[in-house]
Amino acid sequence: MKNYILQNENAVYFECGYSCDNVIFLSLSGENFFITDARYEIEAKLIALNCQIIISNNLIEATKKLLKKNKIKKLSFDPNDFTLFTYEKLKDSLEINFIQKPYFSKLKRLIKTEKEIAQIKMAMKLGRKGFERFAEYLKKDGQNKSEKYLFFKAKECMSNFGELDLSFDPIVAINQNSAKPHALPTDNVFNKNDFLLVDAGVKFERYCSDRTCCTSLDKNINFKREQNFGKKLEQKIYDIVLKAQEKAISKAKVGMKASQIDKLARDVIEKAGYGKYFIHSTGHGVGLDIHEYPNINSRSDLIIENNMVFTVEPGIYLNDKFGVRIEDTVVMKKGRAEIL
Amino acid sequence: MKNYILQNENAVYFECGYSCDNVIFLSLSGENFFITDARYEIEAKLIALNCQIIISNNLIEATKKLLKKNKIKKLSFDPNDFTLFTYEKLKDSLEINFIQKPYFSKLKRLIKTEKEIAQIKMAMKLGRKGFERFAEYLKKDGQNKSEKYLFFKAKECMSNFGELDLSFDPIVAINQNSAKPHALPTDNVFNKNDFLLVDAGVKFERYCSDRTCCTSLDKNINFKREQNFGKKLEQKIYDIVLKAQEKAISKAKVGMKASQIDKLARDVIEKAGYGKYFIHSTGHGVGLDIHEYPNINSRSDLIIENNMVFTVEPGIYLNDKFGVRIEDTVVMKKGRAEIL
Repeated sequence: MKNYILQNENAVYFECGYSCDNVIFLSLSGENFFITDARYEIEAKLIALNCQIIISNNLIEATKKLLKKNKIKKLSFDPNDFTLFTYEKLKDSLEINFIQKPYFSKLKRLIKTEKEIAQIKMAMKLGRKGFERFAEYLKKDGQNKSEKYLFFKAKECMSNFGELDLSFDPIVAINQNSAKPHALPTDNVFNKNDFLLVDAGVKFERYCSDRTCCTSLDKNINFKREQNFGKKLEQKIYDIVLKAQEKAISKAKVGMKASQIDKLARDVIEKAGYGKYFIHSTGHGVGLDIHEYPNINSRSDLIIENNMVFTVEPGIYLNDKFGVRIEDTVVMKKGRAEIL
Repeated sequence: MKNYILQNENAVYFECGYSCDNVIFLSLSGENFFITDARYEIEAKLIALNCQIIISNNLIEATKKLLKKNKIKKLSFDPNDFTLFTYEKLKDSLEINFIQKPYFSKLKRLIKTEKEIAQIKMAMKLGRKGFERFAEYLKKDGQNKSEKYLFFKAKECMSNFGELDLSFDPIVAINQNSAKPHALPTDNVFNKNDFLLVDAGVKFERYCSDRTCCTSLDKNINFKREQNFGKKLEQKIYDIVLKAQEKAISKAKVGMKASQIDKLARDVIEKAGYGKYFIHSTGHGVGLDIHEYPNINSRSDLIIENNMVFTVEPGIYLNDKFGVRIEDTVVMKKGRAEIL
């Protein structure tokens, strides 16, 4: 692609190492332009690499001026990255062939560099420390706290009191609320032997981690893989999901289709009779965005390669009872999946 | 509008009192459909009012099926609410006239109901309590803390330890960092007599508050309007911005153009010789979104009416020194602006 245009914050960051929430990034035959407003001028000029900073209070008009000045005839863009409104304003009065390249920035980022893998690995390490900090808190003070309060405490522990950005708002769900894969925290209170699901991640140099653990409130509360639940059904479901996740991770190989990795996990859950309670895909890529390529689902023919990074997160959700999801982020290395 | 389609989370919330991050909302001759995936089924069915919940793992296909079944010929939508990608997928194979209505949901929300004003008023009240909590913290423990740490403490204080959602990530900027209107927190440390700008807000029942205060670190640190700065230039600039803000609030009247309110503030700053350092507009509407209508800028001909809610936030930014912004959220009532 000789000429392309981007708006997405992470896509722009990938290009020049800086980004903000009001930017158009233009690459014209290798010459790059970071077009933003006066609020971001100082930081953009300090941080953004290999690009000219253009300050304007009308980013679209500034972009069109540059396109005209450089006599651009063809411009690639991701139709997911532009609203219809912006696209039509941009096109208006320009004689340029706009070429749709869906997800081209995400596709650029599909195979991670060693540096990116190290960044995600560090994010995972910091994330695990956050889970440990949260377990320590729960051990001492978790009882009788509402999901809403625990949600804030999870943010505090994960972020190490504000030091780290979060990949997303954590999910902290007790008992029946954990049956909702994207539960919002309620006023429900956490009591002895209650079931707890936590899905959380942090960022290191803008790269995300993602992990989900289940546990229950007892003296030894922790977020390790081995868990002892007081209730039989919880233990049974947990063990099935754990088996599904471990199977998918241990059997995943470079050269497989993404759908085959999905099937590795799904088969275990189906054979145990809970197939219809596994209501989402097995995983998703992780990087600058919390959801990147590859998608690990039953429809994806994408071939898995070394240096791809994705989650493996099967789950079983029993409405009105509880839900189990076990999630780790893996990297494909030497043909196999390694937990990061 | 007989038939319309929405995706924006707050626009959907405005229609039915529930929303999530993966939804298409269809209104067909007054019959409403909330189309989402299985993750949100339980909550959608519990909370969303006056609409049928449709669960699908392909929201666009489910939407097209409904449009076909109901023999829809015309459908209004906001071209800002749909990416080009989604729009083209939606249109494909349908014989429907898609009518562009830019910002129609935001325009619906331009004049607030009494209930909405009460909700924003409560958000402002809770926001002020958050500022007070933060001032108490700073008085006791603020010295020698980094901006990054204070940023987290501001989140903690504003949210009342996780009880409240924030309208946006607060801006906590010391000395020269406050000269960037959207500063990111750094490792710079807060010391005696340093200048501090805080821009923060919280939500009450999803409605946002927005407020900016400047102060300096001394024994009596607080976020009141009257401030005594140790440094002469800081006091001078603060007093100009305060005068500009108070002028705009006291002279704003129903029937004025939005640009006239902008001019009230801008004239004070220009007369004082700092016009070119006031690098943004005077204000913006506030509601479910932190940025709504009306825009209070030099280009807006929109006529101000009773029950509009917007910020008044002039500023002066002295590069490498410091920046002052003073912001309150006001409602137009009986022809005049009242601080909420």
